Amino acid sequence: MSKSKHKHHKHRYALPSPGSSPGTVYIDENSLAPHINLYTYNEGYYKVEHIENIEGLKQRLTDKIYNYWVEIKGFNSLSMFDTLTKDWNINKLILEDITRTYQRPKYEEYGAYDFAISRMLFLDEENVLENEQLSFILTSNVLFTFQDKYADCLDPIRNRLEIGKGNIRIGGSSYLMYALMDMIIDEYFAVLGNWSEQLDLIEDRLFEKPDKSIMFDTQLIKRNLITLRRVAWPERDKMNDILRTDSPLIGESTKVYLRDAYDHCIQIIDMVESLKEISASNIDMYLSIISNRMNEIMKVLTIISSIFIPLTFIAGIYGMNFSREDPITGKILPQNMPELYQEHGYLYTMIVMGLIAVVQVIYFWRKGWFK
Amino acid sequence: MSKSKHKHHKHRYALPSPGSSPGTVYIDENSLAPHINLYTYNEGYYKVEHIENIEGLKQRLTDKIYNYWVEIKGFNSLSMFDTLTKDWNINKLILEDITRTYQRPKYEEYGAYDFAISRMLFLDEENVLENEQLSFILTSNVLFTFQDKYADCLDPIRNRLEIGKGNIRIGGSSYLMYALMDMIIDEYFAVLGNWSEQLDLIEDRLFEKPDKSIMFDTQLIKRNLITLRRVAWPERDKMNDILRTDSPLIGESTKVYLRDAYDHCIQIIDMVESLKEISASNIDMYLSIISNRMNEIMKVLTIISSIFIPLTFIAGIYGMNFSREDPITGKILPQNMPELYQEHGYLYTMIVMGLIAVVQVIYFWRKGWFK
Amino acid sequence: MSKSKHKHHKHRYALPSPGSSPGTVYIDENSLAPHINLYTYNEGYYKVEHIENIEGLKQRLTDKIYNYWVEIKGFNSLSMFDTLTKDWNINKLILEDITRTYQRPKYEEYGAYDFAISRMLFLDEENVLENEQLSFILTSNVLFTFQDKYADCLDPIRNRLEIGKGNIRIGGSSYLMYALMDMIIDEYFAVLGNWSEQLDLIEDRLFEKPDKSIMFDTQLIKRNLITLRRVAWPERDKMNDILRTDSPLIGESTKVYLRDAYDHCIQIIDMVESLKEISASNIDMYLSIISNRMNEIMKVLTIISSIFIPLTFIAGIYGMNFSREDPITGKILPQNMPELYQEHGYLYTMIVMGLIAVVQVIYFWRKGWFK
Amino acid sequence: MSKSKHKHHKHRYALPSPGSSPGTVYIDENSLAPHINLYTYNEGYYKVEHIENIEGLKQRLTDKIYNYWVEIKGFNSLSMFDTLTKDWNINKLILEDITRTYQRPKYEEYGAYDFAISRMLFLDEENVLENEQLSFILTSNVLFTFQDKYADCLDPIRNRLEIGKGNIRIGGSSYLMYALMDMIIDEYFAVLGNWSEQLDLIEDRLFEKPDKSIMFDTQLIKRNLITLRRVAWPERDKMNDILRTDSPLIGESTKVYLRDAYDHCIQIIDMVESLKEISASNIDMYLSIISNRMNEIMKVLTIISSIFIPLTFIAGIYGMNFSREDPITGKILPQNMPELYQEHGYLYTMIVMGLIAVVQVIYFWRKGWFK
Amino acid sequence: MSKSKHKHHKHRYALPSPGSSPGTVYIDENSLAPHINLYTYNEGYYKVEHIENIEGLKQRLTDKIYNYWVEIKGFNSLSMFDTLTKDWNINKLILEDITRTYQRPKYEEYGAYDFAISRMLFLDEENVLENEQLSFILTSNVLFTFQDKYADCLDPIRNRLEIGKGNIRIGGSSYLMYALMDMIIDEYFAVLGNWSEQLDLIEDRLFEKPDKSIMFDTQLIKRNLITLRRVAWPERDKMNDILRTDSPLIGESTKVYLRDAYDHCIQIIDMVESLKEISASNIDMYLSIISNRMNEIMKVLTIISSIFIPLTFIAGIYGMNFSREDPITGKILPQNMPELYQEHGYLYTMIVMGLIAVVQVIYFWRKGWFK
Repeated sequence: MSKSKHKHHKHRYALPSPGSSPGTVYIDENSLAPHINLYTYNEGYYKVEHIENIEGLKQRLTDKIYNYWVEIKGFNSLSMFDTLTKDWNINKLILEDITRTYQRPKYEEYGAYDFAISRMLFLDEENVLENEQLSFILTSNVLFTFQDKYADCLDPIRNRLEIGKGNIRIGGSSYLMYALMDMIIDEYFAVLGNWSEQLDLIEDRLFEKPDKSIMFDTQLIKRNLITLRRVAWPERDKMNDILRTDSPLIGESTKVYLRDAYDHCIQIIDMVESLKEISASNIDMYLSIISNRMNEIMKVLTIISSIFIPLTFIAGIYGMNFSREDPITGKILPQNMPELYQEHGYLYTMIVMGLIAVVQVIYFWRKGWFK
Repeated sequence: MSKSKHKHHKHRYALPSPGSSPGTVYIDENSLAPHINLYTYNEGYYKVEHIENIEGLKQRLTDKIYNYWVEIKGFNSLSMFDTLTKDWNINKLILEDITRTYQRPKYEEYGAYDFAISRMLFLDEENVLENEQLSFILTSNVLFTFQDKYADCLDPIRNRLEIGKGNIRIGGSSYLMYALMDMIIDEYFAVLGNWSEQLDLIEDRLFEKPDKSIMFDTQLIKRNLITLRRVAWPERDKMNDILRTDSPLIGESTKVYLRDAYDHCIQIIDMVESLKEISASNIDMYLSIISNRMNEIMKVLTIISSIFIPLTFIAGIYGMNFSREDPITGKILPQNMPELYQEHGYLYTMIVMGLIAVVQVIYFWRKGWFK
Repeated sequence: MSKSKHKHHKHRYALPSPGSSPGTVYIDENSLAPHINLYTYNEGYYKVEHIENIEGLKQRLTDKIYNYWVEIKGFNSLSMFDTLTKDWNINKLILEDITRTYQRPKYEEYGAYDFAISRMLFLDEENVLENEQLSFILTSNVLFTFQDKYADCLDPIRNRLEIGKGNIRIGGSSYLMYALMDMIIDEYFAVLGNWSEQLDLIEDRLFEKPDKSIMFDTQLIKRNLITLRRVAWPERDKMNDILRTDSPLIGESTKVYLRDAYDHCIQIIDMVESLKEISASNIDMYLSIISNRMNEIMKVLTIISSIFIPLTFIAGIYGMNFSREDPITGKILPQNMPELYQEHGYLYTMIVMGLIAVVQVIYFWRKGWFK
Repeated sequence: MSKSKHKHHKHRYALPSPGSSPGTVYIDENSLAPHINLYTYNEGYYKVEHIENIEGLKQRLTDKIYNYWVEIKGFNSLSMFDTLTKDWNINKLILEDITRTYQRPKYEEYGAYDFAISRMLFLDEENVLENEQLSFILTSNVLFTFQDKYADCLDPIRNRLEIGKGNIRIGGSSYLMYALMDMIIDEYFAVLGNWSEQLDLIEDRLFEKPDKSIMFDTQLIKRNLITLRRVAWPERDKMNDILRTDSPLIGESTKVYLRDAYDHCIQIIDMVESLKEISASNIDMYLSIISNRMNEIMKVLTIISSIFIPLTFIAGIYGMNFSREDPITGKILPQNMPELYQEHGYLYTMIVMGLIAVVQVIYFWRKGWFK
Repeated sequence: MSKSKHKHHKHRYALPSPGSSPGTVYIDENSLAPHINLYTYNEGYYKVEHIENIEGLKQRLTDKIYNYWVEIKGFNSLSMFDTLTKDWNINKLILEDITRTYQRPKYEEYGAYDFAISRMLFLDEENVLENEQLSFILTSNVLFTFQDKYADCLDPIRNRLEIGKGNIRIGGSSYLMYALMDMIIDEYFAVLGNWSEQLDLIEDRLFEKPDKSIMFDTQLIKRNLITLRRVAWPERDKMNDILRTDSPLIGESTKVYLRDAYDHCIQIIDMVESLKEISASNIDMYLSIISNRMNEIMKVLTIISSIFIPLTFIAGIYGMNFSREDPITGKILPQNMPELYQEHGYLYTMIVMGLIAVVQVIYFWRKGWFK
């Protein structure tokens, strides 16, 4: 893995400050300024406008022939949340959930409105997994969405809304909420497809040139899979909750589609489990490759050492300087290392060495070490 | 594993294009042209005809004394799916499920018709696992099946239908659907039998000549088992759903057989789990064999090195050139390395070396390293 | 493990031939000829007779003061199964289940008769695990049993029936069925006891002389445990089904005993899980022993090499032939390797070598390598 | 682990003899002679007497103002069990369960009496885990307990009964049964506390001097934990069964205490799981320590070998005897190995060798091998 | 890990003394003297006073316009617990649960009061995990809390109570109990955040300089995670119990907040599971790094040895002293090792050695050992 890929997203979660009063809206110094769009649409009409704040908005959204989508990006405005409490009577615990963006997917009914959370997982341009929260407040004809970053993966829905293709302008606010949720789940498939391909590439590398980046790359994917699984299970439960609710805000015709989205969640979970098993199997294979390679290395060392160390010893023997002076002539007498002075001593020695080497080679061959 | 076996099926899934409208029929450039057969049969009658398209087919299939099987292979015809919507009133989400061939097995009731999905798993001629989707639409006397490839594993059913053996022409459309589903499950047994035999062969190799292909081959089977398990569990749930439905389209007499098929699913799951455990146990054994082999290699190296390195050192000592010139005669005096000039120095040295070697051999013998 | 132990039971399962019609009796060329015994008994009466075939048997078994056990071993007679269909009205799917001997334990009610399957697991004379199917058809006073091999583990029941000890002749047909099932479960305990002892022996070997057969032997037991577990779980479910049924064919007095057998199943499952964990723990210990042994080997090699390689180098230095001719006399001058010609050069060198060795020994001692 | 600790309890279970009639009392040659105590007590009265046998006992235990505890240790008396059947009408299957002491904890109602089993786990004086069965038969005012060994962990209860402290003489027979069961569960805590301390000591050794006994000791504890878990789960189920029963023999006031005992069971299970995870983590750490140590050893070997082997080679070169005779004078000419006869050849060689060594040391330093 | 971190908390649990009577208050010699605060508050009023003992307190706490919080720290006063039994009629088993501080989180209703247990997990100043028990007794307007240490993590709640911010003075006693429980759960998030950061740091070290402290540090966190998980699961169940109770002591308005706390528990469990998987993945990566490093070390050794050992052998050959005296002249004849006396023998030998080295380097290069 290149070093550049190895970045954590520090401070992933806006954790609760221990002891703060429940229902406290959480805005820190890094919160983005709110950026609000109002979509007004029905089967034959479509208008999007940028608005500054949502004060007094409730009075404007009363025309029942339209559906409205209030899209809020960035939370840095306490007054905005106050308006939600005052004008729309939204529970403070919900506002805390919206602004503390570490929530699990869930769906809750509050009578006049429903509240839901989805988590957008998508790969940014550097292939790092983004994990953002999208919160929904659904009333009879108005859908609010909340996200704390400007970037998301929802443009296809905005396009479909503008073009008016399919059911999207007809199905009412609950259908729009479904469409956004389904879009997010579809994005999970895209992300999984990307990782699946990466795992295939890693597998190819396992066969061709396994190196230690395999371990790092696989672990990175495995970790991302853990993140996705952590989202997919409660997402499935959420879908099930919406399917089974008798909230009047969820249109019956929408439920057929929700069943489809529910099936998608199950497929996501299936794929995550499969990819996790494939990751584990890649890691197992990699570790067995390392072990095998170690065996290879040790075999080379052992063969070379086992052959040449004894031979070197023999050469060392005949390099010794044992000798004896003739007490009379002072000449060196050969009788002490007689082999040295035999006519074919050198030849015989070389033959013995060759035999030793051949025997060892045969021995290692038999043991299958050359295969 | 031979390299040729190592092929992924790239783009295994026709993943949803994120953001496309739900209920969109998915046809890509590789889709095959539709190839449609119409089987008309009852207890005493059997006719199969190739038809060009299904337009106007509904009017032909009204004679209640016959049952009809409309077999559709290849999806490259939008008009075909339009006809299904128009004439047969099939829900668009179903058509999407039929054409996006990554669905899990499932069974859904829609009143006038039931919808079901099976997954055909079979080994192609290169022993690579094929994973195709077979979708069913079941009305009171017409059964539609949909598959996107021409190859399948259903010929035995076509033969039984032609011959009229057993219940197949008598049991109605739901029995034919059962027969196809059961055929697919029987094929799982065949596939598992093949893998089971392969695992036996791998185990034999473990005992005879374990090499690194064992790891790759076992992992390949394990991965295939994961695929099969991913299919078998929802298949079981599907069978259970059909068993418990009160849909009038499923004949009571068929349900006895479905219970049998349900039992088969459970056996499949059992066998998959067993084979997975056997795979894991093969891998464990292989890894322990590698470790043992490493021990063997290291023992050889250590024994040889430990014996000869000290001996070589001794030989090296007596190969040193310490000497002293007699200041007067210029002759080399022996007193500096007196051993060299002793009468039996060479002999004694060889004896000492031999003793060192023998002591070491005994030491290693005692440690059990020669076993 | 001796090679002789390493035998697979090839073709363990009579797998369904894909595409055969459901309800087809399966007889292959290896099926044994049927061997049929008829036991007629009541509290005071016992008779066993060998009969040739079951045609016309129904008329004979009408005397309600007796109970009958028709014991069928070997399936190679299609007419026998036809008689079962014709005279006794047995469902064809049941006959398929009886003859395809890879079924899981189960219990099914069919009104006039109940159908059940047990699996006999026992060790043959070579300690290889046999896995046979015993099928039961229970009517009000006749019990049929079916097995495809002649060997089984049921002789104690036949003896008890002959002697008339305990409840066995009084309890009716359902009690006899219970007694056979309970016998089979008792045999599981015997098998587990055998494996438990083997695991104890393996553990002893772990402490005394661990070699690689430990791995093979343990894995063999583990695999057998997997087989037994695969049988024990559905066996427990079957017992539960029989306990909860309101079938009139199962006597109330028998149910007290069935509860006992159900408890035994749970104990079997418990013991299997424990033995599996003990196997895993033996394997873990064995692997750690291999690792430790590798450490031992490497320590020996490293100590010997580290001490002698530097010493050999020093010896090598003083074995070099650097010298200088006196330009005038042509004599070799000592000034180039002055150590060689110092009076105590050899002695000093030996001392230095000794010091190096001592320092290294102390170093390794400190590291704890001699322990 | 010292060898002495490595003792299996052979024949741990009195396994059923396959094929014996259900309800057969099991007494083998090692069974102890029965040792029977009769405790007669109420709030103000306490008497314990040793009795020879239980024949005719029923007539003595009719005074309703007392509660009775009949404590039976050792089973070697068939007549005793016959009396239980005859006088007290105890089901034979229960007597089999009492004497085959491998039963799981359970609770069963039989109308006139309740039957329960607990398992006493306690450490003997050698810290080996004992696993004994204590069976209870509870009637309205008599409690029977059965155990096949004389040793147990119930003395505190006997003391409390004698002293009359707390509820024990007031609560009736069901309270006494609860007290004994609770005592047994409390003993589980003591056992777990002991193992927990041992695991802490093992962990300390991991940090100070890890040797291979760590593996053995941890595995021993793990195995004991498996035994305890196997007891604790059914114990919890048993407690739950007693809590939910409407048997009149279990006093309502006792149930409050039973809820407490039930909570203790859950805590036991919790602690067992935690200790199992701690064991596993100790083993993982130990294995990583072995791997690290191997790395250390190999580093030493590699550094020493890599530095000195090349140097030895160089020394070897200059130890070669290449030379050339002057064809005329017969003198050895220096030109063939000119380095040998250069004025500073020796010095230069030593410098080159030093440089090689320094370069390698720097190389290994850079690689972090000296850390 | 620095040694200082490696401290167990010995005697973590006040385990029951086997055989003590149920309902016995447990006070050991280390118990702290009780330190009691009485908080009297309503929406507009707040007073905290230190009181010596709780005798006679009941009469003081009757004014229904106030809520009271009796905070008891330290248990070393038997009379205090007697007063609770006498004046407040608290069940003795509860008092045992309060003083034996190894209880799991739970919630129990006793009619006139409810009883609950939370476990405070927080990091002390040395980053060691503290695990304290906080017990609650809730009556209609009085909340008792019990803790056996003086230190806790509840100061933010005391501050909020003093300031009167949010709901805390209005919500009644059940809201205060909720606020304390929620505070404790929020602290879990803080602890998890700390560990998550530590795991990130460990991962950074894995990439930069992996050493063996990684293993120890990760295992330490893993163990702490096990502790937290053991608390979080029953905490979730407890929250669920409180949510579903119809006890009149739990205000309906409080339940909305409890649902929020319940969600937090689920998030805690989620995070614990994720962090456990991340720990496991760090350990896997570390082990693969060790293996890789071993490979690196062995490659260096093998390359150096394989190149130089054969070369040294060749040098050794030409260092042998084979020679032959001329029988007549006594001169050494060159024919026995003819290479030594060839004109370019030395040069040729050096070239051969160079070739051997080059061939080996190429061989190792091809094998990819230099990468």
